[in-house]
Amino acid sequence: MEKTVRFSISLELDLSKQFDQWMKKNGYQNRSEAIRDLIRDKLVEEEWKDDQKEVVAVLSLVYDHESRELPEVLTAVQHEHYHLIISSTHIHLDKHNCLEAIIMKGKAGQIKKAANKLLSLRRVKHGRLVMSTTGKDIA
Amino acid sequence: MEKTVRFSISLELDLSKQFDQWMKKNGYQNRSEAIRDLIRDKLVEEEWKDDQKEVVAVLSLVYDHESRELPEVLTAVQHEHYHLIISSTHIHLDKHNCLEAIIMKGKAGQIKKAANKLLSLRRVKHGRLVMSTTGKDIA
Amino acid sequence: MEKTVRFSISLELDLSKQFDQWMKKNGYQNRSEAIRDLIRDKLVEEEWKDDQKEVVAVLSLVYDHESRELPEVLTAVQHEHYHLIISSTHIHLDKHNCLEAIIMKGKAGQIKKAANKLLSLRRVKHGRLVMSTTGKDIA
Amino acid sequence: MEKTVRFSISLELDLSKQFDQWMKKNGYQNRSEAIRDLIRDKLVEEEWKDDQKEVVAVLSLVYDHESRELPEVLTAVQHEHYHLIISSTHIHLDKHNCLEAIIMKGKAGQIKKAANKLLSLRRVKHGRLVMSTTGKDIA
Repeated sequence: MEKTVRFSISLELDLSKQFDQWMKKNGYQNRSEAIRDLIRDKLVEEEWKDDQKEVVAVLSLVYDHESRELPEVLTAVQHEHYHLIISSTHIHLDKHNCLEAIIMKGKAGQIKKAANKLLSLRRVKHGRLVMSTTGKDIA
Repeated sequence: MEKTVRFSISLELDLSKQFDQWMKKNGYQNRSEAIRDLIRDKLVEEEWKDDQKEVVAVLSLVYDHESRELPEVLTAVQHEHYHLIISSTHIHLDKHNCLEAIIMKGKAGQIKKAANKLLSLRRVKHGRLVMSTTGKDIA
Repeated sequence: MEKTVRFSISLELDLSKQFDQWMKKNGYQNRSEAIRDLIRDKLVEEEWKDDQKEVVAVLSLVYDHESRELPEVLTAVQHEHYHLIISSTHIHLDKHNCLEAIIMKGKAGQIKKAANKLLSLRRVKHGRLVMSTTGKDIA
Repeated sequence: MEKTVRFSISLELDLSKQFDQWMKKNGYQNRSEAIRDLIRDKLVEEEWKDDQKEVVAVLSLVYDHESRELPEVLTAVQHEHYHLIISSTHIHLDKHNCLEAIIMKGKAGQIKKAANKLLSLRRVKHGRLVMSTTGKDIA
């Protein structure tokens, strides 16, 4: 069985109320799990501060595949960084629009650089980089 | 050829400098493309305010597949909402840790609800919902 | 509990030996499961004979993404048939070679036609269509 | 420009007619491309005869996710062989049925063994292993 550490925290009433509302809105059913997630978030954030740390990321892009040059440039930039990309899932949303979900693993610094190249391309309609973790150092 | 509207904006010197730094750090090479992306971001944000609007999302989860009950619950919750899920890519990061990238399409309100159920599950190490767009109403 | 029908079959000694070898080579540990799979295979084959039957398929393609025109044509043909394609996963195998696994769902006749268009494209190095099933009518 | 070798082949009339029918049925528009694909197929087949050769494969499985024990065993077997699996895409076909497309890369012998373990599991409704190639040694 897992060992558990139990401790108390004190919160101002207002902050506590706001936290409870946030928990409810986000589907949490007890405070411990919500606090655990806040701590894990900080730890993952910390991993990304070290450019040499191995991390995992999901980059999502929405674009029109008929945009002049965009598909070719997207493919070229991805192949340039192919050692960072595990897989890339492409959804044909309709006749024009595509979603691409690119899963990456590698050094934080390199992933941020490659992602910025893709995100700042002309004619990408929406893009986001989720900075996640290999899970190795997060309990 | 696409018609273009050209207009000027004025920025305080300090804000302008900060904006240039942000652009550089994020890989933008000209201000128009950077501004276009800020506007598109707001439009996508707006889409998610309407619970009835059809949107697209990518949910990423990192977890240990040996966590008691977690894999079964994840599968059960996903099947409950299978009409919202287009595909789900699973990466075996190592012997213990998994990344799951779940691509969803449907009404904003339903997606937020389903995502919160998954994100707030006990023992998920890291999770994020990227609220993106079908691209239909974004130029 | 599931109801089970039990019946005997008779095989010539030679055929029985060959079947046992085949089972062993293919990882089967008992004859019932092996026979069940032979029957299911036939049922799935039958589904594909009816062009109007809804089926599921996985099309895999290996190609060099620098092949003249091939990536553009692949994207164009896929978008033409976007209503048949659920998702498409792209793996950058190395600097040059790509694997694309395209998951399709729709009428058997339409899927075969679309798949043939993709498989017969010039410069595709290797391609296969796995004709599978929605599972609805297979026990 | 690519160098091309041109040579003639002779076919009996009957075989030639059958080949033309096969070509037409499979979407080929000229004989050279069809013959090229036959040769490539043989080369890929040859790669798989050498258990030590690095190859690429796509394994597809259709099953009911409510089948007793099956999802747990599938996950366990996959994690046991996680170094062979690049990614695995899961489609919720309906409330009960799932398609899983597992992309593998590694030594031919190891992939065949792992695939057979998955394909011969009880209650898998349909499964196929596509033996493909890294593309490195195929022109």
